[in-house]
Amino acid sequence: MKRTFEVAPWHVTTTQWDPENKRLQESMTSLGNENLGMRGFYEEGYSGDTLEGLYLGGVWYPDKTRVGWWKNGYPKYFGKVINAVNFIKLPIKVNGEQLDLAKQTPSDFKLDLDMQAAKLTRSFTAEVGGTQVEFNFERFISAATKELVGQRLTVKNLGDQAAEVEVSSLIDADVRNEDANYDEQFWNVLNTATEDNHALMTAITKENNFGTERFTVGFESSVKTSMDQVDTVKTEQQVGLVYRQNLSAGAELTFEKRSVFVSSRDFADEEAIVDRLHGLTSELDQANFDDLLAAHTDEWADRWTKSDVKIAGDDEAQQGIRFNLFQLFSTYYGNDSRLNIGPKGFTGEKYGGATYWDTEAFAIPVYLGVADPAVTRNLLMYRYNQLDGAFVNAQEQGLKGALYPMVTFNGIECHNEWEITFEEIHRNGDIAFAIYNYTRYTGDKSYVLHEGSKVLTEISRFWADRVHYSQRAGKYMLAGVTGPDEYQNNVDNNWYTNLLAQWTLKYTLEVLTEVDPEVAQDLQVSDEEKAHWQEIVDQMYLPEDHELGIFVENDGFLNKDLKPVSELADSDLPLNQNWSWDKILRSPYIKQGDVLQGIWDFIDDFTPEQKAKNFDFYEPLTVHESSLSASIHSILAADLHKEDQAVEMYERTSRLDLDNYNNDTVDGLHITSMTGSWLAIVQGFAGMRIRNDQLHYAPFLPKKWDSYQFRQQFRGRVIEVTVDANGTKLELISGEPLTVDLDGQTVDLK
Amino acid sequence: MKRTFEVAPWHVTTTQWDPENKRLQESMTSLGNENLGMRGFYEEGYSGDTLEGLYLGGVWYPDKTRVGWWKNGYPKYFGKVINAVNFIKLPIKVNGEQLDLAKQTPSDFKLDLDMQAAKLTRSFTAEVGGTQVEFNFERFISAATKELVGQRLTVKNLGDQAAEVEVSSLIDADVRNEDANYDEQFWNVLNTATEDNHALMTAITKENNFGTERFTVGFESSVKTSMDQVDTVKTEQQVGLVYRQNLSAGAELTFEKRSVFVSSRDFADEEAIVDRLHGLTSELDQANFDDLLAAHTDEWADRWTKSDVKIAGDDEAQQGIRFNLFQLFSTYYGNDSRLNIGPKGFTGEKYGGATYWDTEAFAIPVYLGVADPAVTRNLLMYRYNQLDGAFVNAQEQGLKGALYPMVTFNGIECHNEWEITFEEIHRNGDIAFAIYNYTRYTGDKSYVLHEGSKVLTEISRFWADRVHYSQRAGKYMLAGVTGPDEYQNNVDNNWYTNLLAQWTLKYTLEVLTEVDPEVAQDLQVSDEEKAHWQEIVDQMYLPEDHELGIFVENDGFLNKDLKPVSELADSDLPLNQNWSWDKILRSPYIKQGDVLQGIWDFIDDFTPEQKAKNFDFYEPLTVHESSLSASIHSILAADLHKEDQAVEMYERTSRLDLDNYNNDTVDGLHITSMTGSWLAIVQGFAGMRIRNDQLHYAPFLPKKWDSYQFRQQFRGRVIEVTVDANGTKLELISGEPLTVDLDGQTVDLK
Repeated sequence: MKRTFEVAPWHVTTTQWDPENKRLQESMTSLGNENLGMRGFYEEGYSGDTLEGLYLGGVWYPDKTRVGWWKNGYPKYFGKVINAVNFIKLPIKVNGEQLDLAKQTPSDFKLDLDMQAAKLTRSFTAEVGGTQVEFNFERFISAATKELVGQRLTVKNLGDQAAEVEVSSLIDADVRNEDANYDEQFWNVLNTATEDNHALMTAITKENNFGTERFTVGFESSVKTSMDQVDTVKTEQQVGLVYRQNLSAGAELTFEKRSVFVSSRDFADEEAIVDRLHGLTSELDQANFDDLLAAHTDEWADRWTKSDVKIAGDDEAQQGIRFNLFQLFSTYYGNDSRLNIGPKGFTGEKYGGATYWDTEAFAIPVYLGVADPAVTRNLLMYRYNQLDGAFVNAQEQGLKGALYPMVTFNGIECHNEWEITFEEIHRNGDIAFAIYNYTRYTGDKSYVLHEGSKVLTEISRFWADRVHYSQRAGKYMLAGVTGPDEYQNNVDNNWYTNLLAQWTLKYTLEVLTEVDPEVAQDLQVSDEEKAHWQEIVDQMYLPEDHELGIFVENDGFLNKDLKPVSELADSDLPLNQNWSWDKILRSPYIKQGDVLQGIWDFIDDFTPEQKAKNFDFYEPLTVHESSLSASIHSILAADLHKEDQAVEMYERTSRLDLDNYNNDTVDGLHITSMTGSWLAIVQGFAGMRIRNDQLHYAPFLPKKWDSYQFRQQFRGRVIEVTVDANGTKLELISGEPLTVDLDGQTVDLK
Repeated sequence: MKRTFEVAPWHVTTTQWDPENKRLQESMTSLGNENLGMRGFYEEGYSGDTLEGLYLGGVWYPDKTRVGWWKNGYPKYFGKVINAVNFIKLPIKVNGEQLDLAKQTPSDFKLDLDMQAAKLTRSFTAEVGGTQVEFNFERFISAATKELVGQRLTVKNLGDQAAEVEVSSLIDADVRNEDANYDEQFWNVLNTATEDNHALMTAITKENNFGTERFTVGFESSVKTSMDQVDTVKTEQQVGLVYRQNLSAGAELTFEKRSVFVSSRDFADEEAIVDRLHGLTSELDQANFDDLLAAHTDEWADRWTKSDVKIAGDDEAQQGIRFNLFQLFSTYYGNDSRLNIGPKGFTGEKYGGATYWDTEAFAIPVYLGVADPAVTRNLLMYRYNQLDGAFVNAQEQGLKGALYPMVTFNGIECHNEWEITFEEIHRNGDIAFAIYNYTRYTGDKSYVLHEGSKVLTEISRFWADRVHYSQRAGKYMLAGVTGPDEYQNNVDNNWYTNLLAQWTLKYTLEVLTEVDPEVAQDLQVSDEEKAHWQEIVDQMYLPEDHELGIFVENDGFLNKDLKPVSELADSDLPLNQNWSWDKILRSPYIKQGDVLQGIWDFIDDFTPEQKAKNFDFYEPLTVHESSLSASIHSILAADLHKEDQAVEMYERTSRLDLDNYNNDTVDGLHITSMTGSWLAIVQGFAGMRIRNDQLHYAPFLPKKWDSYQFRQQFRGRVIEVTVDANGTKLELISGEPLTVDLDGQTVDLK
C-alpha cells in the first residue's frame, strides 16, 4: 500500500512533493476547533487540483431538493454545509511572479501536521521570479480562543541578489461548493473595510425559499510584518492589504496574519459582529504570535493528558489512534451545545457538518471515556434543544411524539432519500440509548430525570404511534423501516429497530417512576398511556430463527441467497462501486452491523452462545462498506475471544483515512468513524464494560504489540490502564479511590 | 358536482365565461393528431392564469436528475416533454387596445369542441378599443396532413363606427415549461425568415449533458386574409407578420393561418427541414380552408365508423365514452411506430408524452377492438425497435437480457425513483403479454414468430437472471420489486410480478417451438437455457393463503392492519393528498388492482370462487387512486355478476376528466385511462372474451341504460353489438361470415 505520509507517533508528515495526492493530503492535514475548521489547502493559492474547503460550525444552507416526485412527508430541503469565505488567503509574488506550486516544483518540501501541538507547518524552496526562495508556513486554529486562526510565514531569499517580495493578505468571498447544483455562490458580501494593518468583511448567506435562518458572518484579519504596506484590495468580493519588501540576498522576512471570525450565531446583528471583531483584534494585537500559539498548545496538552493512548511495538497503530483522537477533538470538544459532530467534520463537503446518529451510537461512548462528562452532556442537550424540530418531523409523517432527524442542522430533517429519512428510525432509539449510556457511565442522573425524561417520553410516544398491531400475528410490528444496514431498505420488522423501540418504552417507564412530581406533571403521561406502552413492550415482535439460533435482521431476510462474502469475486468489492443498487438491495450482504449493533448495545444481556451464533451467521455476510462497521465487529470478536479477528477489524478502522482504505478520503475524513479505534482498544482489547456502576476489564494483548496504555475518565477519576506481556496494570491518576473488576477479580485503586 | 361543460352527445361545449376553470377548460379542449398536439389555450394570448402547452410527438429533453445520492443503476437523466415553440399565436388589437379576455370580460361566450369533426371553435363579443367586436376562432390539427394546423378567425365590428383591427401572426420561441427547474428555456432559435405572407422559424433543443438526440424543428405559417400586411416582427425569439384593416361599422373580416411543423425526426438537417416546409406550404396555399378541414373531418368520420359506441338513456355516459375515444385517437392512431401513448398525451407536462406500461396493459386491448391491427402492431414494433435501450437498462442493473423502461422516450429508462425504475419490473411481463394478446386477438402470428420471439426471448433472459433460488424455501423468488400497486414499494414476491415472470418464460418456450429455424438460429437459446427456464416455471414461488383462499399481493402483506377503506374517515381520502408517503407505504391500502390485475390478464384461468374470494378481499382495501384502477374492477365485478358495482366502477372511469373526479385534470387529461370506459363496456358489460380463436359475449344491460351499441374489429370483420331490454343483437357490418359465442350459444354471423 502506498502511504501518503510517513509513520510517526505524533506527526502526519511527508517530505515528498506529491501533487497527485494533493486532495488526500489536504484532507489529512485538516485543522479545526469546533467553531470552525479547514482542509490543509495552500493559503498562497494553487492552480492545480485542490479542494479549498473552509467551514464554519453551524453555518449551512437549505438547498432545493428534488426526489423524483415529491410526496407528503418528504423533507422540503437538503441541508448542506457551505464553503466559507476564504479569510486565510496569502497570495505571494517574487519579482512579480506569482508563487504557485502547480507551476514551480518545490525542493526540500516538508508538510507536517504536529498532532501534539495541533499545528500545521509547510516549508519548501522554490525558484520564483528568477531566484531561489525558501518559504515556511505555520497555521493553527486556536483551541484557546475559538474565533482565532493564526498564520505565520517566513520568506528567505536564497539567491545572490535582492528580490522584491509581495504578500497580499486577503479575505475572499468568491468561493463555491463543488456540490453546488448550478455553480451558484452562497455568500452575499455586506461590507468591507481596511484600516492600518486591518481588513474586515461581513457577508450573509444568500436567500433561501424555506425561511430558515440566514447567517451573517464577519471576518477581520490583522497583519504584523516588517514589510511595507503598499496597497489595499477592495473589490466586490475581496478585501485585503498588499505588502512589499525588497529582500536582500540571504535575508529573511516574517509575515503574521491573525484572523478572527464572529457570526450571527453569537451576535444579534452586523453591528454587534463588527464591534466584537474589533474588540477581539485589538486584544490579539497586544499578544505576540508565540504566546497565542502556546495558549493553544497548552489546551491540547490538557486534552492529551486525559485521553492519550500509547501503543508500543506498532508505530502504525500508534499514529492511527492519535490521528483519530486528534481529528475527533478538532471537530468537537463540547464547548457549544448547539454544535455537533459531522461525519466529515470540517474536512469536506459530503455529509458536511450535519448531525447523524453516529454521534449517539459511536462518538458518545468515546467522549464518555476521553473527556469530561460536560462534553457528552452538551451532546445530549443538543437533542433536547431540538425537540421542537423532532415534533415537526413526526407530524410530517402524521405521527405523534418526537422523531429525531437522520440528518440535520437545526432539528428538522434535511436529507432527501425517503428510505432513509422516515424509515431509518432506529436513530430515535439510539438517541434514547445515549441518555441511558451517559447515565450509566457517569452516574449523573440530573439529565435523565429532567431534560432526558422529556426526550424519552416524546420518543416513546413516537414509537407507540409508529407500531401497528398485527391481528394475524398477535404482535406489535414496525413496517417500512431501514436498519443500520442500509443495504436492506424499507423492510418490515428490522430486529434492531424493534428491539430499540421496545427497550425505549421499557426504559422510559422505568425513568418515569423516578422523576420528580413537577417533572411528571409536565410530561403528562397518563396511566392508560403507560399501560399501552407496557402492552407494546410485552407483545413486541422480535424476529428470531430457533433452528439457526439467531435473531433475524428483518422479515424475509432468510429467503435470500445466503452466500458468504468470501465466495464473491474480488471484482465485486466494494459492492457499492461495482454493483447496481438494485443488486445490492436484493443481495444478503450487510453494509454494517445490524443485528450485531443491537447485540453490542446490550452485550451483557445475551449468552455467549447467542452472541457467537449471531456473529458467526452475520459477520460472513457483512461487507463493512460503512466506515462505522469494523469497530463494532472488533469489539464483538474480542468479546468472543476471536482475538486475531478483533485485531484485523481494529486495523481496518485505525488507519482508515491515513491509509485511505475506502479510497474516498479525498472527499474528507471519516470523523465519526474515528471513534472506532478507541472503542476497539478499550471495549475490545481491554474488554471495558460498565456493570452496576462498576468498571470491568478483561484485557488481552494483540500478538504484534508489546504493550498498550490508555487513560480513561470515570466518575471524577482518571484511570490509566496498561496492558503488556506481564499482564494488566491499573493506576488511578487522579480522583477518589475506586474498586474495579479485572478479569473477575476485584481491584482497589488508590 | 359542478360541470365545466354541458352534457351533449358529440360536443364538449359551454356558453359560460368561467376564468376560474380556465386551465380545466384548456385541458378538456385539447386537440392532437399523434404528430403534435396542444391544450385549448387562446391564440390571442391571455394575461390571466393559463397553461399554454403545445407539444411535439417524440420531442423531449433529458433533464438533470438528482435523487439524493446517485447510486449505480439509477437513471442518468429525467426525460421531460418540452413545451414547443408557440406557432399558433395571433395577438389582436382593436384601435390599439390588445384583446385579452383577462381584461375585457366577454359576452355571448361560446367554447365548443366538436368531437365528430375534431374541431375547436370559440366565439364571443368583447368591448375592445372602445367598440363592441365579435370574434370567432376555429382550430383543427389535421388528421389528414400530419404537419398541418389550421386556424381561422373572423372579426366583426358591432360598433357604429369604423375600428382599426390589427392581427399579428407569430411564431414565438419564448416559451417555458412550468416544471422547468430553474425557469430555463429549452429552445435555441436557429433562423427566422419572412416572405410575402409567410413566416418561418427553425430552432433546436438546447444542449444536454447526456449525449441524447437534440431535435431540430421548423415551423412555417402562411396567412390568407383581406387585411393589409403592414409590418413584420423579427426578434431573437419571435418571427411573424402584422396585418391591419380599418373595419367599418358592421363589417367583418376573415383571417386564416396555416402552420406546418417538420422536424429532424423525419429530415436529415435544417436545410432539408426548410425545403420540406416550403414544399408543404406552397401545396397548402393552393387549397382553400374548408377543403383542408373537410379532409380532416373525413378521416375522423372513418375512425368513428369503426369505433363509435352509442349509449341510449344516459347522456353523460354517451358523452364520456366519445370524449375518451376522441382524446385517445388524438394522442395516437398508429401512424408512426416511433411514437407511443403518453399518459397525458399532448395535454400537459406531467408524465408528458413519455411511454409507460399503460400502453400494453390498458391501451392495446382497446386499439385491438376499435382500430385496424396495424395500429397495435406499430405499438409492438415500438418495443422491438427499442430493444437496444432495454439491453442497456438491464446491463445498468447488472442483469442479462432486456429490461424495458418504466418511463421512456427512446428505450432508455428516464424516470428518477429507484423504487419504480428498477423495481416495478412487472412492465416487462406486461409487454410480453401484449404480444400474446395481439396474437390471440388478431390471429396474426407474423409478429410473435419474428420480432416478437426476439422480444420474448430477451425478456425471458432478464427474468431468468433476476430471480433467485431460495434454498430455504426451495423456490425461485423475485426480491425487491414494486407491483402495479405503487402504495407498496420494494416488496418481495409480488404475486402479480412472479406470475407474469413465470408466464413469460412458459409462453416464450411455447413460441420457440414454432419459430422458423433461421429465427431460432438467431435467438441462440440453448437446450440448457430452455431447461433452466422450465425449472423456474416449475418452481416459481406464488404466494397464496389457503385459509383465506386468496393469492397474497406480496410477502408480509397479511401482517398489515387490514382495515377496509370504508372504515377510513372521509378526511383521509384521497390518501395521496392527506397522508404521508410513510403512512401510505405502511398501510394495507391499494392504489390500483395488483392481484386483481393478474386475475384480469388470465381471467379464464381462475375458478369463479377464486375470482370472487380475491375480489372480495382486495377490492375493499383498494382506494383506486390510480386512474387506471376502476376499469379493471368494473370488468371483474361484471364477471362476478356484481352488476351495480361494475356500473359504479364504470362511472368513475367514464367521466374521470369531464367531471374532474381526481381534481387534477388542470394538469392535463388521463389519456391512457380513457381506455377504461371502453374496456368496462365491452369486456365488462358485454363480457367480451377471446377463447380459442373465437369471440364470446355474455352481455348485461346497466339498469339506467335503455341500450348500448358498439362496433368491434375482429380478424378482418366489423361486428356491431347492440344490447337493449330485448337482449343482444349481433350484426356483421363487414367481412367474412363468422361464428361467435353468445351466452354459451353459438351464433353464425353473415
